[in-house]
Amino acid sequence: MPYFDAASAAPLHPVARQALLAALDEGWADPARLYREGRRARLLLDAAREAAAAEAGCRPDELVFTPSGTRALHDGIAGALAGRRRTGRHLVVAAVEHSAVLHAAEALEAEGGSVTRVPVDRTGRVSAGEYAAALRPDTALAALQSANHEVGTEQPVAEAAEACRKAGVPLLVDAAQSLGWGPVPGGWSLLTASAHKWGGPPGVGLLAVRKGVRFAARRPADEREHGRAPGFPDLPAVVAAAASLRAVRAEAAAEAARLRALVDRVRARVPELVPDVEVVGDPVRRLPHLVTFSCLYVDGEALLHALDREGFSVSSGSSCTSSTLEPSHVLRAMGVLSEGNVRVSLPWGTDAADVERFLDVLPGVVAGVREHLGAPSEAPASVSPAGTELVVDALGKRCPIPVIELAKVFGDVPVGGLVTVLSDDEAARLDVPAWCGMRGQEYVGERAVEGGVAYTVRRRS
Amino acid sequence: MPYFDAASAAPLHPVARQALLAALDEGWADPARLYREGRRARLLLDAAREAAAAEAGCRPDELVFTPSGTRALHDGIAGALAGRRRTGRHLVVAAVEHSAVLHAAEALEAEGGSVTRVPVDRTGRVSAGEYAAALRPDTALAALQSANHEVGTEQPVAEAAEACRKAGVPLLVDAAQSLGWGPVPGGWSLLTASAHKWGGPPGVGLLAVRKGVRFAARRPADEREHGRAPGFPDLPAVVAAAASLRAVRAEAAAEAARLRALVDRVRARVPELVPDVEVVGDPVRRLPHLVTFSCLYVDGEALLHALDREGFSVSSGSSCTSSTLEPSHVLRAMGVLSEGNVRVSLPWGTDAADVERFLDVLPGVVAGVREHLGAPSEAPASVSPAGTELVVDALGKRCPIPVIELAKVFGDVPVGGLVTVLSDDEAARLDVPAWCGMRGQEYVGERAVEGGVAYTVRRRS
Repeated sequence: MPYFDAASAAPLHPVARQALLAALDEGWADPARLYREGRRARLLLDAAREAAAAEAGCRPDELVFTPSGTRALHDGIAGALAGRRRTGRHLVVAAVEHSAVLHAAEALEAEGGSVTRVPVDRTGRVSAGEYAAALRPDTALAALQSANHEVGTEQPVAEAAEACRKAGVPLLVDAAQSLGWGPVPGGWSLLTASAHKWGGPPGVGLLAVRKGVRFAARRPADEREHGRAPGFPDLPAVVAAAASLRAVRAEAAAEAARLRALVDRVRARVPELVPDVEVVGDPVRRLPHLVTFSCLYVDGEALLHALDREGFSVSSGSSCTSSTLEPSHVLRAMGVLSEGNVRVSLPWGTDAADVERFLDVLPGVVAGVREHLGAPSEAPASVSPAGTELVVDALGKRCPIPVIELAKVFGDVPVGGLVTVLSDDEAARLDVPAWCGMRGQEYVGERAVEGGVAYTVRRRS
Repeated sequence: MPYFDAASAAPLHPVARQALLAALDEGWADPARLYREGRRARLLLDAAREAAAAEAGCRPDELVFTPSGTRALHDGIAGALAGRRRTGRHLVVAAVEHSAVLHAAEALEAEGGSVTRVPVDRTGRVSAGEYAAALRPDTALAALQSANHEVGTEQPVAEAAEACRKAGVPLLVDAAQSLGWGPVPGGWSLLTASAHKWGGPPGVGLLAVRKGVRFAARRPADEREHGRAPGFPDLPAVVAAAASLRAVRAEAAAEAARLRALVDRVRARVPELVPDVEVVGDPVRRLPHLVTFSCLYVDGEALLHALDREGFSVSSGSSCTSSTLEPSHVLRAMGVLSEGNVRVSLPWGTDAADVERFLDVLPGVVAGVREHLGAPSEAPASVSPAGTELVVDALGKRCPIPVIELAKVFGDVPVGGLVTVLSDDEAARLDVPAWCGMRGQEYVGERAVEGGVAYTVRRRS
């Protein structure tokens, strides 16, 4: 049963499993104790730290283990901000960072600090120039992901680091998605990562803080992990995390090339096999194993369930698959279609035949969901008189219905005519303009109306 | 090789190991995802929560899993304080709480709040009346451990809970040391625990918050664990923690009775076998598996190493075994001897023969350490004229040397005479008065002198 959601969590790597079992026997004691079981645990912890630091590209005493990538980000950002509080309380992030970074940014704002969210282009990439321009004299910290977790696009980390160096601002790089594939370009001041993304166990994050970077750990703290990660360390998991990082990195180049070719095939074939699809994210500067696309007139949740029934596990940034019923902030920042969104992230060792089977199955699955929703197969030819304006009331209807209703009536207005869709669904804000882009029609704009928003489109062809 | 430090960490329980291995296969995916691996992980998480809640005595939706007992305490205290911020910023704790509670209290003070640390008697127990009297109209939270982690003394939780109920103050009970042995008496508002104390894996703490208790989680937060514990959950560890809690609790009564008898034997025999020993902690109202004693004229670190060479792993609250070179705050709050301190905490299934062997070995080990330090075997008879005052300069010397020097010269002053010990070692503040208590001599008091403190003793017999 092919699992294609490695960017969320990967099954435990065999090396991680073996290391975990050994460390459960040898590393359950408190590494701070003086007796033999404690000393043995300390040796394992030191060895794990050395191995992880070598892979991360830092000194062992610069790296601590945290209970998750999220906690590494929360505590790393808080510590770096507190360490530079005299400089100011301004934080720079990319608009498409992981939600843990954005939550930390919101916490800073709630405490009176300020945040600049640098926008991205339609591929999900920040401009190095715009990122550099966001740095201010009162900027305490800048954060930038190495690569995006939803669309795979790599960020210009080296250029951002150089701009930060010139401005005297520490740069935190969230390497959660990329560290298993290779080291992060030098120049970062803080680095975070998450072991269960590279086949390590859950329960382990990395936080590296370069010597000399001002850092004041969040209180309360204790004496564990240089005072930067309180609580009894999960040593078996830490040992497994370090061992598997080393193992996957030893073969990362070959496996990346293999998965990159599989992803290239998905990127090329999906638009040929499925009508009305937008493949998103940078086609070249991207993670090797990840591809994301959105299908017009498709309900993301229904699509996920249909793929699940066919044996494929994927995730989605569509609003219907989130607890808040809002499209993913990444797709929103990119300004791309959010309905019928599918993220395919291939785990280590993915069988090429499973990818082929996915391509075989996908067109029928999408067609089935569209048919069930009554989606238009193509825009009908116009027969109506010029100057007509149609209003579609889709209030109370969820993604992708508003766009389906728009498409259904669009043929009824002549070239030059207007269609206005009334919707109270957040996804419409993204998907109506995206539909226009895909169909070559003109998006006129939105205005507030009673009970929702009116989105207006002009027919061009 | 007998390991007698279960209060620090216990080897993984066989049930925990089995559950962990199964959950590594079945529960590695994100339980928030819609596909089959995610649904399977969700089922495991829900079942673990139900099992742990049943053992803790709460509803499943009142309980979240945290990355450690320390983080449960940090986040539980912060959340409860923030939830009642309008009431006030006063916190009540026992002076002998786990350092995680005291660190959280210090963090509150650093932010402008206030803390009452309720003192304990020589057994390490708070008085229920004193605890109740510490509650004020502006008290936001009270915290009390179920039993002490260093000396095993049980606290009057039920009485404290009743006083808190009357005062309208939520009570947080730190049940880290006791939850494996039985449920905490009702009446608590918040409960914390730590899985690796009961044979579960590291990386799992419990935080229960009763319905209706005001709680505002620390920011940044995310949607995991009711917004109370951010980050990807360590599901295999959580499953193992819940399974082992249920397993140990099913046999807790019988095992507690067995270990209680072993500890009673240690409590009775150690003072008979080893001269100049003080067994500390409540002899009856105590954890079943834990006993602590202190040996006059003994260096705790040397004692630990000597016991380790004999194959016994124990811990110590002596100053020489701590990174800060200060005696444990618990022993200090109790006002008992801190030098040569040994905590024996028996893990589940301890062999009675190992305890006997410990009793066989201990007298020789203590005598060896004393001999090496040149400790007096008994106080020599006095021959000096009355009215003499001797001054012993032990500046720059570490525990237990100042007390050894005191004992060596004590026979040189007549009954009624004074001996003053000059010391800059923090342990002397505890150990000189404790020596007086054990020897039936009068502790006159302390005064500051250049480079340290002068502790004065009057000879009574």
